[in-house]
Amino acid sequence: MIVVMSQDATREQIEAVMRKIEEFGLKTHPIYGVLKTVIGVIGDDKTKVVETMAGYPGVEQIIPILKPYKFASRETHPQDTVIEVAGVRIGGDKVVVMAGPCAVESREQILNTARLVKLAGGSVLRGGAFKPRTSPYSFQGLGEEGLRYLAEARAETGLPVVTELTDPRMIDVFCEYADIIQVGARNMQNFVLLTEIGRSGHPVLLKRGPSSKIEDLLLAAEYIIKEGNRKIILCERGISTFETYTRNTLDLSAVAALKKLSHLPVVVDPSHSVGVASLIPAMSLAAVAAGADGLLVEIHPNPNAALCDGPQSLDFETFSATMSKIRKVARAIGREA
Amino acid sequence: MIVVMSQDATREQIEAVMRKIEEFGLKTHPIYGVLKTVIGVIGDDKTKVVETMAGYPGVEQIIPILKPYKFASRETHPQDTVIEVAGVRIGGDKVVVMAGPCAVESREQILNTARLVKLAGGSVLRGGAFKPRTSPYSFQGLGEEGLRYLAEARAETGLPVVTELTDPRMIDVFCEYADIIQVGARNMQNFVLLTEIGRSGHPVLLKRGPSSKIEDLLLAAEYIIKEGNRKIILCERGISTFETYTRNTLDLSAVAALKKLSHLPVVVDPSHSVGVASLIPAMSLAAVAAGADGLLVEIHPNPNAALCDGPQSLDFETFSATMSKIRKVARAIGREA
Amino acid sequence: MIVVMSQDATREQIEAVMRKIEEFGLKTHPIYGVLKTVIGVIGDDKTKVVETMAGYPGVEQIIPILKPYKFASRETHPQDTVIEVAGVRIGGDKVVVMAGPCAVESREQILNTARLVKLAGGSVLRGGAFKPRTSPYSFQGLGEEGLRYLAEARAETGLPVVTELTDPRMIDVFCEYADIIQVGARNMQNFVLLTEIGRSGHPVLLKRGPSSKIEDLLLAAEYIIKEGNRKIILCERGISTFETYTRNTLDLSAVAALKKLSHLPVVVDPSHSVGVASLIPAMSLAAVAAGADGLLVEIHPNPNAALCDGPQSLDFETFSATMSKIRKVARAIGREA
Amino acid sequence: MIVVMSQDATREQIEAVMRKIEEFGLKTHPIYGVLKTVIGVIGDDKTKVVETMAGYPGVEQIIPILKPYKFASRETHPQDTVIEVAGVRIGGDKVVVMAGPCAVESREQILNTARLVKLAGGSVLRGGAFKPRTSPYSFQGLGEEGLRYLAEARAETGLPVVTELTDPRMIDVFCEYADIIQVGARNMQNFVLLTEIGRSGHPVLLKRGPSSKIEDLLLAAEYIIKEGNRKIILCERGISTFETYTRNTLDLSAVAALKKLSHLPVVVDPSHSVGVASLIPAMSLAAVAAGADGLLVEIHPNPNAALCDGPQSLDFETFSATMSKIRKVARAIGREA
Repeated sequence: MIVVMSQDATREQIEAVMRKIEEFGLKTHPIYGVLKTVIGVIGDDKTKVVETMAGYPGVEQIIPILKPYKFASRETHPQDTVIEVAGVRIGGDKVVVMAGPCAVESREQILNTARLVKLAGGSVLRGGAFKPRTSPYSFQGLGEEGLRYLAEARAETGLPVVTELTDPRMIDVFCEYADIIQVGARNMQNFVLLTEIGRSGHPVLLKRGPSSKIEDLLLAAEYIIKEGNRKIILCERGISTFETYTRNTLDLSAVAALKKLSHLPVVVDPSHSVGVASLIPAMSLAAVAAGADGLLVEIHPNPNAALCDGPQSLDFETFSATMSKIRKVARAIGREA
Repeated sequence: MIVVMSQDATREQIEAVMRKIEEFGLKTHPIYGVLKTVIGVIGDDKTKVVETMAGYPGVEQIIPILKPYKFASRETHPQDTVIEVAGVRIGGDKVVVMAGPCAVESREQILNTARLVKLAGGSVLRGGAFKPRTSPYSFQGLGEEGLRYLAEARAETGLPVVTELTDPRMIDVFCEYADIIQVGARNMQNFVLLTEIGRSGHPVLLKRGPSSKIEDLLLAAEYIIKEGNRKIILCERGISTFETYTRNTLDLSAVAALKKLSHLPVVVDPSHSVGVASLIPAMSLAAVAAGADGLLVEIHPNPNAALCDGPQSLDFETFSATMSKIRKVARAIGREA
Repeated sequence: MIVVMSQDATREQIEAVMRKIEEFGLKTHPIYGVLKTVIGVIGDDKTKVVETMAGYPGVEQIIPILKPYKFASRETHPQDTVIEVAGVRIGGDKVVVMAGPCAVESREQILNTARLVKLAGGSVLRGGAFKPRTSPYSFQGLGEEGLRYLAEARAETGLPVVTELTDPRMIDVFCEYADIIQVGARNMQNFVLLTEIGRSGHPVLLKRGPSSKIEDLLLAAEYIIKEGNRKIILCERGISTFETYTRNTLDLSAVAALKKLSHLPVVVDPSHSVGVASLIPAMSLAAVAAGADGLLVEIHPNPNAALCDGPQSLDFETFSATMSKIRKVARAIGREA
Repeated sequence: MIVVMSQDATREQIEAVMRKIEEFGLKTHPIYGVLKTVIGVIGDDKTKVVETMAGYPGVEQIIPILKPYKFASRETHPQDTVIEVAGVRIGGDKVVVMAGPCAVESREQILNTARLVKLAGGSVLRGGAFKPRTSPYSFQGLGEEGLRYLAEARAETGLPVVTELTDPRMIDVFCEYADIIQVGARNMQNFVLLTEIGRSGHPVLLKRGPSSKIEDLLLAAEYIIKEGNRKIILCERGISTFETYTRNTLDLSAVAALKKLSHLPVVVDPSHSVGVASLIPAMSLAAVAAGADGLLVEIHPNPNAALCDGPQSLDFETFSATMSKIRKVARAIGREA
């Protein structure tokens, strides 16, 4: 950590700051520049306490040097984490495609979709039973009934299931029905929820919030890891920007950055990020080329009639065609799909 | 609702779309333009169902005409809502100042602060007992002990208390200790929490999420209102932008916009938005001039030693001086403070 | 164009708006909804004049239906535009790689780089002679001397040259030296410059501004086309967002969107967008998979000693390795590189 | 400047970096932390050269300590700069209101407007003769004819004139007609234009670009100052964000920040930032309360019939009423208007 003193900081102020830092049990190392003085603070991660000093007289800026997340960092865990869920390895050589409808709408819909996902070569079934929606007047999901249909689809096809949890009081039910618990973008910093999932030890797919920096996503992962649960799949799903043509702006650089900064697997949700079905096949290929370990794609037997997110759902035919292109691109970069 | 058909939509596609809309029990009204056809959909708010048709062949765009929120809208409730909490009227003529530390750190700290808030002319005491922090390694608050200190401060000074709830399982405890329950920016779309607060009927201060549009904030309010709770105070606290000098970008236009679109009171949190103590007095005055019904300001007896958000906390002296300026600006626009 | 009247608009206001529209020689088509009235305006692109009516009493919103750009639109020109520059076809089957240093620093540097670009399979040499820099204290380029070195490199290698023009007074010099004139992101809405380039008829690479929507980029292209110059290569180079880990946020969805909305070729600059050398190879592959017609990559014989943008420049070895991966991904999606 | 070495940097790499820095004639000061080494670089502003080393093996990050702008900084020029234009002092005690139409449309329109501005207590007349518009199909202004009408309005009313220059070739004409040359948001980083204006020594109003940080604006000012022209008025006019209700997001914190960081006067354009006429009076008051030295407001005798930006123009009556409120708020904070 570096404490930058302002240009007009007095010698007394500089010394007061150094004394305070030393009271915390840390070492100081001042550098007297031509115009400004900066104070290096030495002492591992305990330097965090120095952040509280930003308001001290004469202090202009406090610059952290160490990354604020630890267990999620590749610095502390250089090799890739591979998460195994019901025989599916996420984070390994194979690009894992998770597909399904935005919302479970009926038994038939989810069973048909699961069969198609399996047929087309997908590895995980996605589908929302409890749907957080921006408007309270939109369809909110089938609830536990939806979870049971998902379980039935899993039983028939063998595909593990990923579905979103929004209520910490339902953690046990989800641990029973879901192979992977999804934390949605709106809940990325719902620390109560993250802590429960951390304690459960259950595999989790953690979506990046629409205004969350890459670092914030890794800190959210840290909330889960510090409870002892390392089975975390990070998910890029678009960020809020001024562009209105797409629903969000898909940040594929975040995939490469996350793979560099962290050992955790990274998947991409092209559906929610782009929100325009015709762009999703191209973005799926781009995500794979960018190094994503998997995709989370919305598909629907009849997108025109979907109760949720129809405009961004692929029909079965487009999905199958996209799967075969995904395999080609994966092979081109030395992976499978 | 207007359905815009693409330039190359066939007559069959146009008719299929119209038939489908009519199946929903709505009326259609096509306009055949020179290049494109648009279909007007008539039938009040049931038109929402038409949104699911965005993927229909030939449909280019679906444009809602009615606002997606109802009860929060000034169109349905033209007069200002005034919320009365322990004798304090929020949304009336008087600009209400809510002040206190980011986090309750000790009994002494919160009691001293409460006395100062009262002395300087503030109306509500703020203070966090359960602190959601971006990093799991930052101070997370005193928990229920903090709530008890707040209650003690209220008992002594008579100031009502606003404090943040993050866990839906704690709603009853908060209804007991807090006069106003705060929903933090990270939880603005935690619909599980909003629904519980809606059911409780308790006054709530709802902070705008850092990537939430004005419309999203009103839709979040709608989640609470539709459960029967209209005691909602909206709070602008800055949005995520590319600017890094300030912590967030305070969007004061949102204050004027919210006052126009909604009947609910609007307060401004200059502390979290700006994040730089020296800019907060000016932003407090600007918020009042923009028409805010109140302010939520972080103050601390010794900002240099604060365990949370010290850099953005005002010391008592600056706060008192700012209060007297706030009163002058309030008077200049025909209000009190 | 659709004119939405506010809920409390009077019959007189609605009629006054309709009369005014008809005075412009346009037809009106009112739809009387349950709560609001909307007025359809018919008459091709002359409807633009209606935009000036947004302030009329009772008018709530004016919604354009037609796209504001014409010549850049795929609606008016369905087949892909292919631009041929000195034997290189841009927008065709082959993904075109344009590479070179941020700035021309010396004769040796640019000659060596050109040879390497050629050797590695690149098709166009890039290099800045006049450098617009955020700070006036950064290196501003060699000026005309730089242009002459570029011409020499072209003469030796046969590679056409792309270089940035910032001053409309220098258009003639650039038409002489440059095969493709680059308009930088900061000048995307420098309409004086766009008009001069439009008149010159010279091939141009038009970079998206960091806060420009996809539509704004196409409107900037429209400024050039309307002067009679259709030889426009669009370039995605990242947009300004709250994320600070990367220099800008590369918006690869824009590639797919631009290919859908426009017939013009689209290239991607992964270097300026990401700004972190280690992420650029992955982003180059992702751009190709997303459907980009080409790449604009910064390379430098010795990035550590570059006078400009060293941190985001690839060294020759990394560039060559990336080129061979680009070829594989291009082939996987049915193109060459 | 601080060079942060990565955790796995070798001793050889650290020494190589230090040697290189010393070759530039700078002093190094290493701090060996528990996990990482950081190198302090001493030697005033020559440290800029070190930025080019970001790609060196083992270098993780380079952190500048000194501000990148000098002459625009309050650190080098603590007292406020006051610019006097035809008897109007900008940056002094009085809040200066500049008002007029977006575009000069006719002799009558600008003469009438000028008289009203004078009558209502405004100090400067604004009006565009050369209009840069996002679409080439929008009204582009009257050109030199517009400049002559402005001059006539100035002759009659005595109000100095501010008008936008977009073409560096027209600098002499503008120096003749305009009292203050405006640089529009789209041209904030048109360094060719900034340099010409810098050389002219003419007063300039420099608008912040919609994706420009506060620091970028000050660096653009630096381009003008380094040519010897200190007569710069900074202008906040809104930034690009995800919010769509307003045209841009007015960043009033930037006013307080610019007044802290720089000695230059700061004005606010509430019209372009907000883009919704009904919000502009409140934002004008907020800007004054935030500490702005002036306002740049669009008014029009008949906003409904304006050829440009009608929806965001105030009519004369609203403007006069707003002026009287502005005076009250100015007085409340100890200024005049």
